[in-house]
Amino acid sequence: MIYLDNTSTTSVSKKVIDVMMPYFIDKWYNPSSIYDKAKSVKKDIEQARKTIANFINAKSDEIYFTSGGSESNCLAIQGWIKYVKSLGLKPFIISTVIEHKSILECLKDLHTSGIDVLYLPVNRYGYINAEDLKSALKASFLKADAILVSVQYVNNEIGTIQNIYELVNITHRYNATFHTDAVQAFGKINIDISQCGIDMMSVSGHKIHAPKGIGFLYINQNTKIKPLIYGTQENGLRGGTENVPYIIGFAEAIKSYDFKKYNSADIIKIKNYTIKKLKEELNCKINGDENFDTFNIINATFPQNITGESLIYMLDISNIMVSSGSACNSYTNEPSYVLKAIGLSDNEINRTIRITLSDSINSDDINKFIHELKRCIYLITEESE
Amino acid sequence: MIYLDNTSTTSVSKKVIDVMMPYFIDKWYNPSSIYDKAKSVKKDIEQARKTIANFINAKSDEIYFTSGGSESNCLAIQGWIKYVKSLGLKPFIISTVIEHKSILECLKDLHTSGIDVLYLPVNRYGYINAEDLKSALKASFLKADAILVSVQYVNNEIGTIQNIYELVNITHRYNATFHTDAVQAFGKINIDISQCGIDMMSVSGHKIHAPKGIGFLYINQNTKIKPLIYGTQENGLRGGTENVPYIIGFAEAIKSYDFKKYNSADIIKIKNYTIKKLKEELNCKINGDENFDTFNIINATFPQNITGESLIYMLDISNIMVSSGSACNSYTNEPSYVLKAIGLSDNEINRTIRITLSDSINSDDINKFIHELKRCIYLITEESE
Repeated sequence: MIYLDNTSTTSVSKKVIDVMMPYFIDKWYNPSSIYDKAKSVKKDIEQARKTIANFINAKSDEIYFTSGGSESNCLAIQGWIKYVKSLGLKPFIISTVIEHKSILECLKDLHTSGIDVLYLPVNRYGYINAEDLKSALKASFLKADAILVSVQYVNNEIGTIQNIYELVNITHRYNATFHTDAVQAFGKINIDISQCGIDMMSVSGHKIHAPKGIGFLYINQNTKIKPLIYGTQENGLRGGTENVPYIIGFAEAIKSYDFKKYNSADIIKIKNYTIKKLKEELNCKINGDENFDTFNIINATFPQNITGESLIYMLDISNIMVSSGSACNSYTNEPSYVLKAIGLSDNEINRTIRITLSDSINSDDINKFIHELKRCIYLITEESE
Repeated sequence: MIYLDNTSTTSVSKKVIDVMMPYFIDKWYNPSSIYDKAKSVKKDIEQARKTIANFINAKSDEIYFTSGGSESNCLAIQGWIKYVKSLGLKPFIISTVIEHKSILECLKDLHTSGIDVLYLPVNRYGYINAEDLKSALKASFLKADAILVSVQYVNNEIGTIQNIYELVNITHRYNATFHTDAVQAFGKINIDISQCGIDMMSVSGHKIHAPKGIGFLYINQNTKIKPLIYGTQENGLRGGTENVPYIIGFAEAIKSYDFKKYNSADIIKIKNYTIKKLKEELNCKINGDENFDTFNIINATFPQNITGESLIYMLDISNIMVSSGSACNSYTNEPSYVLKAIGLSDNEINRTIRITLSDSINSDDINKFIHELKRCIYLITEESE
């Protein structure tokens, strides 16, 4: 099996499963209870929080556990809106056209409820323009009392890495708050939160070998928002009995995550090798900024008149898994809005697949993948002749 | 070890752990992906949804998975408010003073944002008065365009079971929507959703031997709300990659849940035996409606001048776990608002503990518990003399 859809989700690492097990078997107490066995579970949660905070150079009490990236995104945006409105202030949101669905759908609904939202465009590589952000901030500064800028760190379809440091700097010059959806950046890009000045950051566990259903929202100690899920847990900002096994597993995923290996020349070599093969042997066009995108995401458009979808099904028979874009949109049948935003036609989008690597993919896997890809294309073109 | 805090959380059953494991080890695919291995996971989720729907005689597409009871409660209330406001209508909420914190905190915040909320009182047994609901509906009917009634099915501290059928009937007569927090009722009381007419119902997995971090909101097909967490999953009403292992585990917890055993005369005998001992040997006063409350919750006030908290710590040394009320409020140090609402003084509340049974507790456990309780009280009163 060759799994090339690591942006969609990753396997749960054995180490993560191992550390979670005791919390299913005998450490299943409610961490809010006051007897010793429960307090010890509470202590383990706080240790996990510390591990995660340290990884991004944040303070422990700036990490709020959620059920995943989508919740973190929705909490950041709606929580901020609620807080701003509670002060009697008029909010304004600046975002981009290539955000994750959890953000775009949330913003769409906020807009229908009367909140002003402005979407920045991206260029053909997927970058937003710093000047566009400046103009948007200037314009909204006059219209609103409080501004939130929400920009995805790494795009989940094409891998474009935004220049977050610059965007944060500009945002703060206008006294605005900066949130980033870092679901695809976390673990791939070194994030030192104390250096980059991000005010809120969404992270998901299942993109780095923890299970699906755990994530966190980093909230800088000076940033104030209101809860979505009310209760006493997570310092009153996220209610609900803690998902203890997943919190412990998430911290382990970060501890055991081979960050160096993931950022080594080896995996970049594999990426470049894959791109070279796709271009030279299959005449593919690579979307995004191939030399500067994250090392794990390759988005390729085929020249032949074949659909990405049929390729996915054919490769699947040979036990090779790729995708046609974001898994979250697989069932919608709409052409990717991200690829549209960088200028691809519907026809080009139909001819596109996404290949996303992990540190366990080697050149033999890529050779087999390219070989199968050629065979599939041969079969498809043969058939249509 | 004698665990008498099953309302706070329950152990994860071995069967549940067993069925979850494959979804950590090799069925970890994103259910939204379109290759076969992922589609098969999607199918398993839908099977789990069906199992759960069948258990309450609902339709599969009326079950929306969430991260737990608190999320379900907050989704029901805020999602309903959002929907009503999107129609340009004025909402009104009727609830009670003894709801779970996730509801009370949510309502408090909605109220500060300008939403009208009315809280029904409860009598000394914890029941709300049907006439009070009628008056509230009558009054709000004139002031608002849409009314939501949210009443807890079973109270988590004293076990009072509201007369939900009657309350739903009254609510519907005023064309209002009925939500119930059934976290403590699910699995204890036979709920046939097609019979009782509930419009929305919140349920949590970890109260019936599934893990913490999974729950669902039942939404009747004719009831409309908006999401809190946006995305494509759960029919667009709850975004975020599905927590597959927990969904599978939740369905298994329901399948393997010994509903008959839990509702048998045996466990009621154990409850009555415990109450008899507490009354006769320790002069306790039992809070709630002892003959009609759920069979698993006993809330007892001691006559002596000893605090529930010190009892909890002392029993803990003998490996017996009880609580002083809701675990969610353990760290707040505030006297229970539920006990306050049924008329207990702060002093009485301080002298109160909650004992919650499971089907694995037998009379030997209770004898040992009572014995230790007596010893603790003896030590405390001895010391203070």
